[in-house]
Formats: sequence, structure tokens, C-alpha cells
Amino acid sequence: FNTSNKVEDAFDFKGKEHVTWININGLYNTTEIEKLGKHYNLHPLVLEDIVTTNQRAKIEEYEDYLFIVFKMLHFKDDEEIVYEHMSLVVGENYLLTFQEADGDVFDDLRDRIRNSKGRIRNARADYLMYAILDAVVDNYFTVIEAEGDKIEDLEERLFLQETSTNEITSDIQKQKREILKIRRTVFPFREVVNKLEKSEWKYIDPRTNNYLRNLYDHMIQVNESIDLYREMIWGLMDLYMTNISNKMNEVMKVLTIIATIFIPLTFIAGIYGMNFENMPELHYEHGYIIVWAIMIIILIIMLIYFRKKKWI
Amino acid sequence: FNTSNKVEDAFDFKGKEHVTWININGLYNTTEIEKLGKHYNLHPLVLEDIVTTNQRAKIEEYEDYLFIVFKMLHFKDDEEIVYEHMSLVVGENYLLTFQEADGDVFDDLRDRIRNSKGRIRNARADYLMYAILDAVVDNYFTVIEAEGDKIEDLEERLFLQETSTNEITSDIQKQKREILKIRRTVFPFREVVNKLEKSEWKYIDPRTNNYLRNLYDHMIQVNESIDLYREMIWGLMDLYMTNISNKMNEVMKVLTIIATIFIPLTFIAGIYGMNFENMPELHYEHGYIIVWAIMIIILIIMLIYFRKKKWI
Amino acid sequence: FNTSNKVEDAFDFKGKEHVTWININGLYNTTEIEKLGKHYNLHPLVLEDIVTTNQRAKIEEYEDYLFIVFKMLHFKDDEEIVYEHMSLVVGENYLLTFQEADGDVFDDLRDRIRNSKGRIRNARADYLMYAILDAVVDNYFTVIEAEGDKIEDLEERLFLQETSTNEITSDIQKQKREILKIRRTVFPFREVVNKLEKSEWKYIDPRTNNYLRNLYDHMIQVNESIDLYREMIWGLMDLYMTNISNKMNEVMKVLTIIATIFIPLTFIAGIYGMNFENMPELHYEHGYIIVWAIMIIILIIMLIYFRKKKWI
Amino acid sequence: FNTSNKVEDAFDFKGKEHVTWININGLYNTTEIEKLGKHYNLHPLVLEDIVTTNQRAKIEEYEDYLFIVFKMLHFKDDEEIVYEHMSLVVGENYLLTFQEADGDVFDDLRDRIRNSKGRIRNARADYLMYAILDAVVDNYFTVIEAEGDKIEDLEERLFLQETSTNEITSDIQKQKREILKIRRTVFPFREVVNKLEKSEWKYIDPRTNNYLRNLYDHMIQVNESIDLYREMIWGLMDLYMTNISNKMNEVMKVLTIIATIFIPLTFIAGIYGMNFENMPELHYEHGYIIVWAIMIIILIIMLIYFRKKKWI
Amino acid sequence: FNTSNKVEDAFDFKGKEHVTWININGLYNTTEIEKLGKHYNLHPLVLEDIVTTNQRAKIEEYEDYLFIVFKMLHFKDDEEIVYEHMSLVVGENYLLTFQEADGDVFDDLRDRIRNSKGRIRNARADYLMYAILDAVVDNYFTVIEAEGDKIEDLEERLFLQETSTNEITSDIQKQKREILKIRRTVFPFREVVNKLEKSEWKYIDPRTNNYLRNLYDHMIQVNESIDLYREMIWGLMDLYMTNISNKMNEVMKVLTIIATIFIPLTFIAGIYGMNFENMPELHYEHGYIIVWAIMIIILIIMLIYFRKKKWI
Repeated sequence: FNTSNKVEDAFDFKGKEHVTWININGLYNTTEIEKLGKHYNLHPLVLEDIVTTNQRAKIEEYEDYLFIVFKMLHFKDDEEIVYEHMSLVVGENYLLTFQEADGDVFDDLRDRIRNSKGRIRNARADYLMYAILDAVVDNYFTVIEAEGDKIEDLEERLFLQETSTNEITSDIQKQKREILKIRRTVFPFREVVNKLEKSEWKYIDPRTNNYLRNLYDHMIQVNESIDLYREMIWGLMDLYMTNISNKMNEVMKVLTIIATIFIPLTFIAGIYGMNFENMPELHYEHGYIIVWAIMIIILIIMLIYFRKKKWI
Repeated sequence: FNTSNKVEDAFDFKGKEHVTWININGLYNTTEIEKLGKHYNLHPLVLEDIVTTNQRAKIEEYEDYLFIVFKMLHFKDDEEIVYEHMSLVVGENYLLTFQEADGDVFDDLRDRIRNSKGRIRNARADYLMYAILDAVVDNYFTVIEAEGDKIEDLEERLFLQETSTNEITSDIQKQKREILKIRRTVFPFREVVNKLEKSEWKYIDPRTNNYLRNLYDHMIQVNESIDLYREMIWGLMDLYMTNISNKMNEVMKVLTIIATIFIPLTFIAGIYGMNFENMPELHYEHGYIIVWAIMIIILIIMLIYFRKKKWI
Repeated sequence: FNTSNKVEDAFDFKGKEHVTWININGLYNTTEIEKLGKHYNLHPLVLEDIVTTNQRAKIEEYEDYLFIVFKMLHFKDDEEIVYEHMSLVVGENYLLTFQEADGDVFDDLRDRIRNSKGRIRNARADYLMYAILDAVVDNYFTVIEAEGDKIEDLEERLFLQETSTNEITSDIQKQKREILKIRRTVFPFREVVNKLEKSEWKYIDPRTNNYLRNLYDHMIQVNESIDLYREMIWGLMDLYMTNISNKMNEVMKVLTIIATIFIPLTFIAGIYGMNFENMPELHYEHGYIIVWAIMIIILIIMLIYFRKKKWI
Repeated sequence: FNTSNKVEDAFDFKGKEHVTWININGLYNTTEIEKLGKHYNLHPLVLEDIVTTNQRAKIEEYEDYLFIVFKMLHFKDDEEIVYEHMSLVVGENYLLTFQEADGDVFDDLRDRIRNSKGRIRNARADYLMYAILDAVVDNYFTVIEAEGDKIEDLEERLFLQETSTNEITSDIQKQKREILKIRRTVFPFREVVNKLEKSEWKYIDPRTNNYLRNLYDHMIQVNESIDLYREMIWGLMDLYMTNISNKMNEVMKVLTIIATIFIPLTFIAGIYGMNFENMPELHYEHGYIIVWAIMIIILIIMLIYFRKKKWI
Repeated sequence: FNTSNKVEDAFDFKGKEHVTWININGLYNTTEIEKLGKHYNLHPLVLEDIVTTNQRAKIEEYEDYLFIVFKMLHFKDDEEIVYEHMSLVVGENYLLTFQEADGDVFDDLRDRIRNSKGRIRNARADYLMYAILDAVVDNYFTVIEAEGDKIEDLEERLFLQETSTNEITSDIQKQKREILKIRRTVFPFREVVNKLEKSEWKYIDPRTNNYLRNLYDHMIQVNESIDLYREMIWGLMDLYMTNISNKMNEVMKVLTIIATIFIPLTFIAGIYGMNFENMPELHYEHGYIIVWAIMIIILIIMLIYFRKKKWI
């Protein structure tokens, strides 16, 4: 196991009985990639796909090697999701991986190779490929579960109704778009793994096929989780609309109760505020008390009515 | 039929002409599971799948055995649904089952074996497998029908409108998520049963195939029920929104009726509460009575109008 | 053509060159059914399916006979839909039918046999089977068209707006569930007819195949009608929501017009109801008339504004 | 080219090297149709399908002829869509067409034959069939484009908001149902054309196949147009709901502005309308002016607030 | 590389070992197109399709050539999308392209041929065809991304809420229809590229197939982008409805707060504006102050209540 910054150093290992794994970090040093492409006899379209980051996950079978492009998801600073373009070329006894950025996603894998535990160290290139893809799918799980947590957070905030309305709409909208973007990135990868499992490529060991089948099952699970969260987030928007309607209903009820009670009472007060010369009630000794009594009776009738309507 | 806590005790039965059924309760004693795996020559991926509870239902055909993973649903304390991870390995004359928790789901089945009634006791491993899967599907039915009852409860509560709005929204939301979760768990099992029926695995008797076809029909029915309840619960949300709108409409009507009647009347009272020196009406002998008469006429016109609009 | 209450009476006809049709009404007399099953050598699963009413429509091909399960729909007292479980076993020269309840669905068919009109009397068992299934599909049409009429009734009631809101919501909801239930019952039958037409079962005459193709076309039409009505009833809910919104809008307009006119006028009246010592307007000779003039001008402006807004 | 009212007159042409086209207008003269059926040896089911107008579009291949059923759409009086049941039987050198009503849909085609322009006159029966189906599909286009125009009309009316609300809801609903009905009628015809193109029927010339492929492309376009208009009309309902909400919002704003301004002012007026003996403000020389000043300040603050809220 | 306005000038090149590319701008000069069609032996249907602009994208394989029809999208004056009908005929060593309008879409391609860089100049007709289709798909990307930017603009405007409501509804509606139209135009092209890649047409070099596969991947990406934007724009309408509801809620709250505070206070003022002879409070020395105190207490209670409800 060697680490080097020059591609040529790696060429000596080719053809030996051990498997060579060359990992290129950063797609800017195109000259190195071209050298590598020449050395391993890669098709010009493959080289173009390696450096074009705006790519859909796909798998292509060439004479001497398999070529796989996909996106890797991980969190940057535990917040933002990074969509990293990756390519992978597997030949008989070599494996080339191209990462968009310097990353440490495969550190764990490298450690397992260094420490020679498990099947990794003595495995052939196809098993190594499986191990890398497995790590990628594990990352998918991590990212999606984190998104799921965010959605459940949003739902709880909706029930507590403690956030201002505009902020939460914007958060739901953002989350919705995030899920759509992840879905669009991750879904094609299922097809890649499926093709990989189904393909009868000569350098894939039948024993590795069991592992690929497993990988495919995981990808199905990933996609189902995404669709579940997608459905949940559409439900959130509905729930939010329901919340608004509920609140407006409550506002309306308060207004209606107050207005319905006091408008008639104010009318009665208005009647006896009139300045007609000839208003006999005004001269009754207990007129004022009687009016108060009438008002209180109206109030009580109103309250009973509202209670019956279950408004209070 | 024997019950034991040590795996080795069961090994003696292997290879005899009777079928051996070993059931492991609890996935924590991995050493026992590994011993068993070694004894029956299980693939490492199979052993891994047995102890990984976060699994999608699937079936895998190996050289000597079939391996099936699925989730079993049952109620805990008649309230909460438990999703129990189960695995099943069927060989020529043995059957291994692995349950996540100590459970009594197969008690009924065990009884039928003990009492030797039916085809169970003399059956081969494949028929026993069918009997177990049949019990699982029966459990699915039980759980789904219970969920269906809950949904119909919710619908009735919506029509009676006796629950507070927030509570019922939260209940609908919870129910929706429960159905989505069941759906996600149960749907892949249909594919498993389908593959099982279609597969030409050597140890499955053609006679058992008829039973598996029957099982597949039941699974289709399970899935259709789930989708029906799913559609019904989406309809509940709509119904709830309609209820809110209806209520708000009613609130608005009460407000409008009261305000529309009394605001003009209060205006009239306000007119004759003005202190202008020169207001001839104030000095009419019957001014006060006439104003009352006008008010009552306005009231009657209003009521007729509302009646025509079907508001009252 | 014979009618009898004992199964054995029918056995004598078996094997003759005429076709035997045995119809069992009611699934409670299991002993008779078992006798029949023994006589015609039916699989235990078939017998189980015959008496299990909670079944999805399906077709199963056995060595000597075809077995078809389905639901028959008809109206009880022209109101409630009855879902009757039926099974049908067709052999080379016999036809067994099992009905859940005593029914008169095939009376028409029986008449046609008795009167020997058409192809029925001299036909083989497969044609008889076609005739029965055709009668079933005709019943589907009748039921679905009746449901369609109910939906159009609901729509008309919505446009007339003469029913109380809660009643109509509940009716729409009920109708929606009815359609979903019919759909769930009828849809699998299409697959049955399709399999029947496609199957190369030895006892089906090629000439009958043309008729089965026709039957299949009818089933497609049945399913399309169901889906059309389903879409229409979802549209009704939308229409109802629109109606509510429209009504609330109208209520709001009335409130707004009345309040917007009289609140400012009442304010003016309030002004001149104040008891300040030094209010010069009160002492103008025409003060009262002027105030009335101002109020009428305000009223006219308001009315013009509302007219412009198309509120009145 | 001959026109006659008696079927027998047409029989003489059969078997000659020219192609015979017999067109029956009106399905009521069943005896003529039966004569024709006997002459051309048509299956009883075909004859039944010809006279049953409630049919889904389909194609059936018999020994000696192809049988096609479909609906033809055209406008009656430029308003109502007529769904005319048509059947078509193509044999080696004859073509029978059956129309539900006397129509002039094929006048243009007949003219082309009479005037011997183009490939029509010397063509075989299969090309003639293509020409008829092509005319039918052209009619579909005409009808659908007219529906599309109606939908755009509706949309414009919605934006202008000049129609009364109930009228437009009813129009949208009617249009929606019309589109659903057209869809249900036209969609199966695509499958018919597809089967026709795919079929290896002996009497279809390979050269005609290019034309059928073209026809199939047109049918796809027809169906896509229908689905586009369907989606647009669902969007209209949404747009309408949005319009209602917008209007209600505007109504609410007017109410709120008026009420919010005048309710507090009326309160102030109410204060100084009280009859307490000891109210010092009443005796201030400029009390009345000061109160007016306060009221105007409140009014200005309110107006600024509404302006900030963008309500006015 | 030659440019000429007469078709005949181009014929001399035919049959030579270099590839001939003839591009016709404008479909009005049908005589030239017919001459070309005669020269290259094109089927009449092909010629008809070339000049019929109302066409769905399709590919047809003839004996000597491939015929492809599609729409090209580009912006006119950076605003309006132009849907230009294009056809393409590829033979062994010639390539005919037909554009609806004079355009400069292939200028870039022509420059690459003139300057002889890359594989273009020495390539065969099939590679040239790929290059043209690739340019078309690139144009699709440009147009769709521009639409995506417009949708994001709309979303931002919705969040800022600075546009008048009617304007933005109309913009969303317009955008929705634009996306639907693009979708309808572009989607069939994916099938064309797929068929092209899958087809085993004799004049397509296996090496070109890799490029076509790449093209197909791009088309999938195009279609996914369209569907993503389509889903986003449907979400905008929801968001807009939510905004309206939010605003109405806010309006309602202001009305409710003002009305709920001042209606009861006005009632109190009304009470003491009554003219009863016997109202003891009026004669209390501090009556006026006490009433003010009561009113302020009521105000404070109201404010606390609103604060608790989170309305202010």
C-alpha cells in the first residue's frame, strides 16, 4: 500500500499479481489523469466523463475495464450536503478512483486494508470495488437519515407552532428541494448497482456477486427511504395549511364571540342615549337597573349558545 | 419435538429422516448463531443478515438452502405495533428460524405439530416453511385490520366533531405515518413470496407450490388493503379540511348576521343621540315609537333576506 | 335440467355426454360440498377457497378442471350493494357453481337453457362457463351504472346547494368508499378473464375463445367506468370545497358592505353625540340637515365603490 | 364507384379485381346488415359488435378479414360533440364500413376517389382502410383543438374575472367531464392502430405499413394533446380557487381598514358622549378641537401602518 | 465545405469518399426539397414529414437512410422560446438537414469542421449526425436551465411578496404552461436517441455507438431536469396559496385585535351615555376616572390574552 503524488510511481505495480489501487484527489490536474488514461488505455469519452462533474450515475462496460460514475454525498461541517463527483475504473488487477475534492471518505477502508483484517487485503479488484461502493451507499444512508431527522424536527416545530410562519414555510420549501435533489442524485445509482449485479463481466468473481446483490438490496432501501421522506414532507405542507386554517378559525371565533356579545348590548345602550323628549323608560325609577338586567340576560343567552356550538 | 437452550443439542437430529426445526429467540447470542452457521454451512452474508435487524424483506437462493428475511408484525399490549426482524433458512430436511425477541407467535403452530393434526407433523421442511410464512401473513392481516378499525374510528370522530382539532390532526398524522411504515415493511414481502412461488428450487415439492400460490394471493390482498387504507387516510385529511372550512363558514355567518342586523340599528340610535339644537324629530310626540317601528321593520327585512340566502 | 337439494342425485349425470351443471346455494352445508369435492376429486385448497368468502378473484388451473373465484355484485332492495362470494369449477363435461346466498342471478340463464333457445342448450361446459361469467359482468355493469347515477345526483345537489353541508359531505364520503370497495372487488376479475382467454386449457374450445375475448373487452370497459366515476367523485369533493369558499366569500361581502357603510356613519353620529360645551356645529340652524347630507354623500360614494368592485 | 340503398346490388362487385367499398349508414336496418354478414361470412360476434353502439375501440383479426370498431368524433351545429359508433371490416378486396348515423364525414374521401387523384383510386383495400382511419384521426384533431380553444377561453375569462362565479365553476366542471369523456373514447384507438401496425396480417401490404406507422404517430400526438388539456383544466380549478381566495382577501382588507380606523374613533366619540357630571375635558374651551386633532392623528398613524403593510 | 443556394450544386459531391452535408434553411422552397428528395430517393412520407412542422420527434429507418424529425429549442431575443422544426436524413456518405427558419445554431459546428479540429472533419456521416444531435441536446440544456432560473426568480419574488398578486399568478400560470410545452416537445426525443442507440443500422459505426450512449445519458438528464422544474412550479402554486392564507390570517388578526379591544370599551362608553334619570354612577365625584380605570384594565387583560395567543 503506497501513497504518492505522482501517477507514474503507481505504474510499476501494474501487472503484478497484487491489485493496484490508484486514487486521484481533485480533477484539476488533467495532465495526470490523461497520463493515467493513456497508461491504462481508457476511451476518450471515459476521460471526458471523469472530469465532467455534472454527470448522472452510470455504468459502462468496455473491453478491458468497467467504468462507473456516481455522486458521493457527505456533510460539510455537519450542515450542508456536498455532492461529490466520483468515477471508478476497474480492470483485471487494478482499480482507479477519481474524487472531485480531497476527501477522507475512504480512510476507514484504507485502514482496513493496511491492517489486513477481513477479506479486503487479499481480495481481487472486483471485491475492492464492492467495498468502495458499499462505503458510498453507507454514506447515502447517513445523509438520508440526517434529512429524515430534519423532517421530523420540522414536524415537531409545526405541532408546537412556536416558529414564525414565514420562517417555517421557507424551511419546508428548502427541505423539499433538498430531498428532490438527493433523490435525483441517488436514484440512478440503483440502476448502476443493478446492472453491475446482472452483468456477466468477466472479471467479476461469482463470489463477489452475492455481495453485489446485498448492495443492491441496500440501494433499494435507500431509495425507499428517500420516497418515504418525500411523501412525509409533502404531508408537512398540508399539515401547515391545516394549522393556518385552524388558527384563522380560532381568530375568527374570538372576533365573533366578542362582536356578537357586545354589538347588541351597545345597540341597547345607544337606544337610551337618544335624546327624544318623550321616552317613558328614562323616567322609570328602576329603568337603569332593568336595562342592566336585560343586558346580562342577553349575555347569558349568548354564552349558552356559544357553549352549545362548542366555541368556548 | 424438543426445546433446548443449547444449539448443539439440536445437531444430532440433522440428517435423519425427520425434519429438524431450530428456532433461535433473540439475536444477541451471536456465538450460538455462528456455531449454527458453521454447522449448516451458511454464507457469512447470511449470518450478517440474520443479526442485522434493519433489513428489507428478501429471499436468496443458495446452493444448499433458501434464505428468507422478513418482518413480523404484532401488537404489544394491544396498542403499539412491534416490527420484529425474522430470518428463515430452509434446507433439505432442516428449518432454522431466527426471531429478534422472545415471542409466542408460533405457539399455535407448535401446538399443531405437537398434536399431530393436519399435514404439519409428517410434512417436509418446505411445507413447514409454508406454514410459518402463512402464520406471518395471518399476522399481517390482523395488524392491518386493526389499523383499518382505527381509521374508521377517526372518521367517525371527524363526523361527530367532538375531539379538539389539534388532537385529531395529530392522530391522523400519526396514523398516516403508521400506515406508511407498515406499507414499507410489508410490500417487499409480496415480492419474496412471488419469487418463492416462481423459483424452481429443488427442495420445494410441486405439491407445496399450490399452497405458496395461495399465500401469494393472500399477500396481494394484504397489499391492496394497505393501499385502500392509505387512500382512506388521505381522504380523512381532506375531510378534516372541509370540516374546518364548514365551521369557519358557520362562525362567519353568525358574525355577519349579528353585525348586519345591529350595526344599522345602532347607527339609527346614534343619530338621535346627537345633540343638535334643531332636531325636529326629537320633539315629535311619537318620535320614540316611530324610531322603534323603523328599527323593527329593518330587522324584519334583514331576517327575510337571511332566510332567502338560507343563512338561518 | 334437474333441480334437487341432494348432491348425490346429481352424480348420475356425470360422465354422460350431456353437460352437468350443479349449483350449490349457501356455503353452510359443508358436508355436501365435501361430498361433491370428493366425487369430482377437488384439491383441498379449492374446497377451502370455496367456503372462504373473504377472497380475491382468481383463477387456478388444475389437472382436470379450472377453478375460478370471484365476487358477484347485485343490489338488495335497490339500495345496498351485496358482494356475494362465488366459485366455479369447470371440468370436461361438468360445471359446479357455489353461491354464498340463495340468489336468483342465474334465473335468466336457466330460463334460456330450459327454453333451449340459442347456443346455450347444446353447448359444452366451457360455453356454459362463459355464459355465467357474462351474466356476472352484466351485473357489474348494472351496479356501476347505478353508482354513476348516484354520483350525478350528488353533483346536481351540489349545484342546487339545497342540502345541508354535513349531510352532503357524508354522502360524498360514503360514495367514495363504495366506489373504492367496488374497484377493489372488481379489478382482479379482469385479470381472471385475461388469464382465461390467454390460457391454453385443453377443455376450452377455440370457438369459445372469441367469446372470452369479448368478455375481456367488457371487463376493460367496466374497469374504465369505475376509474371514471372515481375521478368524478374526487372532483365532487373539490367542487364542494369551491362551493364552501364561494359561500364564505358571499357572506364576507355582505358583512363588509354593511359594516363599511355604517361604521363611518355611526362615527359621525357619535361625534355629535359628544357633550362638549363648545361645539359650534350643534348650534347651526341647519346643522342636523347638513350632517344628514354628509352621511348620504358618504353612502353614495361607498355604493359607487362597491359597484366598481362588482360586490353589488 | 356506385351508390345504392340495397346491399345486394353491391355483391356483384365482390371478387373482381377492383376493391369493393360498401358503406352502411344507420344501424337500424339489421336485416341488410345480416345479409351482408352472411355474404361475407362474418362471425356472429362481429355482427353483434357492429350494432352495439356502446363499444370500446378494438381490433380483431379473423381468418378472412380484419374487424375494427371505434368512435368517430365530430361537432353537431358547431357546439355539441357527437360520438358516432363505427365499424370497419377489411377483407382481401372489399371494405365494409358501418356508420351509426347518416353522415358526411367521408365525403372528402369519396371525392378524392371519384376524382382519381392520388394513390386512392388504384389502391388496395388496406390502403383504403388507412385513408378512412386517417380521416377519423384528423377529425379527432379537429375536435380536440376546439376543446383546447374552449379551455383557453375559460382561462382568459378567469383572468378577466368578468363571469359570475357559479357559472364559471359549472363551465369548468362541464369541460372537465367533456375532456374525460373524449379521453375515454379516443385512448383505446391508439392501441388499435398500434396493433394494426404491429400485426402481420396477410392482406396488409408492407408499403401500407409506413402509412400506418405515420397514423400511429398521429394518434400518440392526439393522446398527448388530450392529456395536456386535461392537465390544463385541472390547473384551471386551482386558478379559480386562487382567484376566490384573492378576492376574499381583498374583501377582508377593505373591512379591516374601515373597521380598524373607525372603531377606535367611535370609541373616543363615545367617551365624550358619556353623561358624567364631573368630566373636566368637556368644559375646556378647545376640548372639541383637541379631540378632533387626536382623532386625525390616530387616522394618520393607521394609514401609515396600512401603507407599510401594503394593504393600501 | 461549400455553401450554396442551389441544391444541384451539392449533388456533384455525392458518392465521393468524403461526406456531403446539405443544409436547407426554410421549408418554403418545396421545389428544392422535392428535387433533393428525388435525387436521394426519399419516400414521399419523408418529404411530407419534412415540411409538416406540427410533428412529434421520431426516427424512422428506411432501406438506404435514417430519417429523424425533432424540434430544436432556442431563445429569440433572450425572451421567447422558439420551437424550430428540424429533419435530418443520414445515408452512407451524405447528411441532409432541414431547418424551419434561417438559423445560426450550427455555426459553431461548421466552424469546427472548417478549422478541422477534432474528429469532426474526417468523420463519417454517422458521427456528423451525432455532432448535430449533440448540439441540439446542448441547446435543450441551455433553454431548460434558463427556465429553471425563471422559476427560482418566481420563488424569490413569492418570498419577498413584493409583486401584486394577480401579476404573479399569471406569471406562474404562464411558466407552468411553458414547462408543459417544453416537456411535450423534448420528451419524445429521448425515445428517438434510445432507438438510435439500440438500432443495428448498418451505417452506424460501433465506435459512434459509445457517443450515442453518451447522448442518451444527456437526454435522460434533460428529461429529469424538466420533471424537476415541473414539480417545483407546482410547488410554487401551493406556496402562493399558503402566502395568501398567511396574509389573510394576518389581516384577520389585526381586525380581531382592534375590534376585540374597542367594541367592549365602546359598550361601556355607551352605557354612561344613556339618559336615564336615575343613574347613580354619573353623580359620583370620581365616576369618570373609575370608568377610565376599568377601561384600561380591560385593555391590559386583552393585551395579555393576545400575547398569550401569540397574536402580537
